[in-house]
Amino acid sequence: MRKVLIIGIGPGNADYLTIQAIEALNRADVFVIPDKGEEKADLRRLRLEICDRYIKDENYRLVEFKTPPRSKDPANYKRNVEDWHARIERDYQRLLAENVGEDECVGFLAWGDPTLYDSTLRIIEKIRARGVVAFDYEVIPGISSIQALAARHRIPLNRVGGSVRITTGRKLAEERSIGAETVAVMLDGEQSFRKIDDADVDIYWGAYVGTPDEILVSGRLADVAGEIELKRARARQEKGWMMDAYLLRAPGET
Amino acid sequence: MRKVLIIGIGPGNADYLTIQAIEALNRADVFVIPDKGEEKADLRRLRLEICDRYIKDENYRLVEFKTPPRSKDPANYKRNVEDWHARIERDYQRLLAENVGEDECVGFLAWGDPTLYDSTLRIIEKIRARGVVAFDYEVIPGISSIQALAARHRIPLNRVGGSVRITTGRKLAEERSIGAETVAVMLDGEQSFRKIDDADVDIYWGAYVGTPDEILVSGRLADVAGEIELKRARARQEKGWMMDAYLLRAPGET
Repeated sequence: MRKVLIIGIGPGNADYLTIQAIEALNRADVFVIPDKGEEKADLRRLRLEICDRYIKDENYRLVEFKTPPRSKDPANYKRNVEDWHARIERDYQRLLAENVGEDECVGFLAWGDPTLYDSTLRIIEKIRARGVVAFDYEVIPGISSIQALAARHRIPLNRVGGSVRITTGRKLAEERSIGAETVAVMLDGEQSFRKIDDADVDIYWGAYVGTPDEILVSGRLADVAGEIELKRARARQEKGWMMDAYLLRAPGET
Repeated sequence: MRKVLIIGIGPGNADYLTIQAIEALNRADVFVIPDKGEEKADLRRLRLEICDRYIKDENYRLVEFKTPPRSKDPANYKRNVEDWHARIERDYQRLLAENVGEDECVGFLAWGDPTLYDSTLRIIEKIRARGVVAFDYEVIPGISSIQALAARHRIPLNRVGGSVRITTGRKLAEERSIGAETVAVMLDGEQSFRKIDDADVDIYWGAYVGTPDEILVSGRLADVAGEIELKRARARQEKGWMMDAYLLRAPGET
């Protein structure tokens, strides 16, 4: 039977890979390499470098996957994501049938952790449930950008006995407040931290965390928000893409 | 200057270690091995196996650290934790001064991820800030038990556009409800899922996740709570220790 491996590869530095992920890379006959257009060439190169560095037998194949475009209309966020996933699902199903032999193993490389804000797993489960193409699959966890961020800032994610909420920029912008918890924000293309109403909040921000291009900024949100916006815009322009995350919390003991 | 490395070693299977963690293991001259009493002998053995498997130069030293006892009085949770940390802090400071040379590197191995419900980082930062013993330190992220749990159950932690709350059994027992989010529960010695008032909640529970002793149970909380309690109690009795975690969420699309 076909085997699908959804492999967490961490947030951008090949040293974040686990031994389990490396073993999974070595089990795959084929890898799906997404093509998201010009500006993501760096990320594509990073995926290929990971394969090249860790896979012993060079006989693996690459299948290019042209990621379908996604509507950015903010009024129908959920519906747009559903439509987008449905298109990827249809394409992945065809890819599995046409590009992966019945006794072969195919690897999908997921940035960070495949269970956190990555839909490969969700889509693969839907294809399996439909039963048109028979396969089994496994999920290999990876270091998420939030963990790399906390490690590089050297701060615990939770306070003693406290909780941590991992959320999106979109949700943060709606809520405008963080409450008593530590809030970790991923997928924020809009710098939603600018919309926080709480007068006194600390931010720990990082981009390209754990890589040679890493940028870290921390401090009182009101004091450093402008610096983060500036550094983020400049880096995004220079590199053509941005991978960032941040933590927000009320000041006090870590 | 002395260097302290706080190294995440994942939730119990040596394959969860990252390349970065393995490189950190190889930089350390000394490792602190906690002694938490008879029942944790298995965990002690696992730490030593990790060192043995990954460290190339066998000339590293081990320093046994007798973890001070902690008051379990539930009335003063925060105060008890503070007192306990203060005792560990005093002991670690002495250990750094007496057992680690001024140009040496010492490794602390943290189960899971050192930024999530582990206080080594918090305590080390306090010692550094006091300035009696001079050292620098680094934090190496690790796979948390929550990530391993989600991967083994093959479910995304978040729903599309949704958030995830990571909390403790203690907090869950106080709140008795999970709301609309996915809730991931760690550090729960009391099976606080029994206290949930929501009529309809799904649970994804796992113990010793990713190891040969792994136990996974999932289903409607009301249907499987008894099975989890039974399996948990039996395994705890047999092995002498328990490492478990679970997710709770309202039923529906993953």
